[in-house]
Amino acid sequence: MSKLVVVGTVAFDAIETPFGKTDKILGGAATFIGLSASHFNTEVGLVSVVGGDFPQEYLDMLSNRGMNIEGVDVVKDGKTFFWSGKYHNDMNTRDTLATELNVLADFNPVVPNSFKDAEVVMLGNLHPAVQLGVIEQTPAAKLIILDTMNFWMDSALDMLHEVIAKVDVITINDEEARQLSGEYSLVAAARKIHTMGPKYVVIKKGEHGALLFHDEHIFFAPALPLEEVFDPTGAGDTFAGGFAGFLASSEDYSFENMKRAIIYGSNFASFCVEKFGTERMQSITPEEINTRLEQFKALTKFEINA
Amino acid sequence: MSKLVVVGTVAFDAIETPFGKTDKILGGAATFIGLSASHFNTEVGLVSVVGGDFPQEYLDMLSNRGMNIEGVDVVKDGKTFFWSGKYHNDMNTRDTLATELNVLADFNPVVPNSFKDAEVVMLGNLHPAVQLGVIEQTPAAKLIILDTMNFWMDSALDMLHEVIAKVDVITINDEEARQLSGEYSLVAAARKIHTMGPKYVVIKKGEHGALLFHDEHIFFAPALPLEEVFDPTGAGDTFAGGFAGFLASSEDYSFENMKRAIIYGSNFASFCVEKFGTERMQSITPEEINTRLEQFKALTKFEINA
Repeated sequence: MSKLVVVGTVAFDAIETPFGKTDKILGGAATFIGLSASHFNTEVGLVSVVGGDFPQEYLDMLSNRGMNIEGVDVVKDGKTFFWSGKYHNDMNTRDTLATELNVLADFNPVVPNSFKDAEVVMLGNLHPAVQLGVIEQTPAAKLIILDTMNFWMDSALDMLHEVIAKVDVITINDEEARQLSGEYSLVAAARKIHTMGPKYVVIKKGEHGALLFHDEHIFFAPALPLEEVFDPTGAGDTFAGGFAGFLASSEDYSFENMKRAIIYGSNFASFCVEKFGTERMQSITPEEINTRLEQFKALTKFEINA
Repeated sequence: MSKLVVVGTVAFDAIETPFGKTDKILGGAATFIGLSASHFNTEVGLVSVVGGDFPQEYLDMLSNRGMNIEGVDVVKDGKTFFWSGKYHNDMNTRDTLATELNVLADFNPVVPNSFKDAEVVMLGNLHPAVQLGVIEQTPAAKLIILDTMNFWMDSALDMLHEVIAKVDVITINDEEARQLSGEYSLVAAARKIHTMGPKYVVIKKGEHGALLFHDEHIFFAPALPLEEVFDPTGAGDTFAGGFAGFLASSEDYSFENMKRAIIYGSNFASFCVEKFGTERMQSITPEEINTRLEQFKALTKFEINA
């Protein structure tokens, strides 16, 4: 079975949306990526750090869903990373209310020996120095996928460029693609980002879907139109997890297969937003996944013989 | 051959975008709809009004492209409707600089006798009273398509509802769908708009594509990602014209065929924005249309056997 290394935060989130608010609940990029990727036939190894305040039951849940958590460092006398945010009525924009780095401030990622030969590496949103550290510990990787955000473009651009030069796929949102490239058109932005290193550029547009660029080829996957979006937190990570998990399980890193990976990522993301935090991701059944996959197929399928 | 009646403005536009600005050039909803619809095998009859200042060469151009302009009233001592707008840097938002109704203020649409038996009626964005007048003159219509906008929701909502109750298809943008329905989710909005009359609801999202709703079925067509958008003016009308023109020519008003119509509409809209005003729409060749159709197919096509 193939191996997938996932580095990212395992964290506490406190979320407020127009539909309600939560106390500290389980969150973090690696958590969402792992919950999504673990649906595929690949060994998922998490690399992260938590504090002594992190409940054992959360760690057990990750293990029980098939994730290897050897690489999750527990700093007994430290506190777990905490993020708090409030979504606006449109659910597309949010204010960050609190960010407490805690144990993340001194995070030195260690990839367990059993995962140093991983074929696929998913670099969740984190300081580029941490991402670089993981790349150095996974020399056998055939596919490295990077997720990042504007925060690192503002604060650590040089090091971020060092990471970008070493990865095969980058996933960022539309505004970040514009910021990174200095180009407004997403077609022009993707072209410029190609020259920075990644052969594949995935631009996430939230409720407006996702674009995959490779050379002069473009693939577009819509987001599933939903009756109700309850909490968008983690949707981008869930998308990345489905994308990486599918590619790792199939061991086929072609453009054609990446299209499928984008659809699987979008499929999982559509579940993620239906409940607060990771709740929905912990309850999905294979039947639900397949039913929604059929909806994705129907959504864009048309026949024109011109 | 089938007949398609198009009612809407034939106008002067003055446009400013980050790429340049124009003096008064040819514009108007019916103009763009007609230029798009006339690519299909259907008789297109325009119903509109212009002033004595409207150049004969513009009227000749419309005729030469196969449109019947008997229904375009020329008010010798009146002035043509004029709109002026300036697009912001993102090209998605614009300020209206001037709106001069002129001859449009007293427009009483008259459908020529030869088009009273039209199978398809495309009601371009205009006062609902004018749209109602055209519906009354086309009793044989098998498919009535309505385009409207927030302006009429604000100023003539009751009469707009009267029109909405009589049409088969409504095309509006996402914000307008939310305003009309009072629902934020587009799925919920479409469901509510169905109850107002239209069996088919098309929600236009500009660069983010278009959604077609029918009962519980949803179809999504992306906009073609473009290297450069030069002038978005008329893109929505061009979309509607391709949609209506294809349906009229095929005389098949099923959901399956409407999907194709959405793709044709999106295809024409992708050309429209490449130059100022109607310039690009006057130069498209059948080869260009087919080449871009293949791009649309490639853009969303994927194979998953789950």
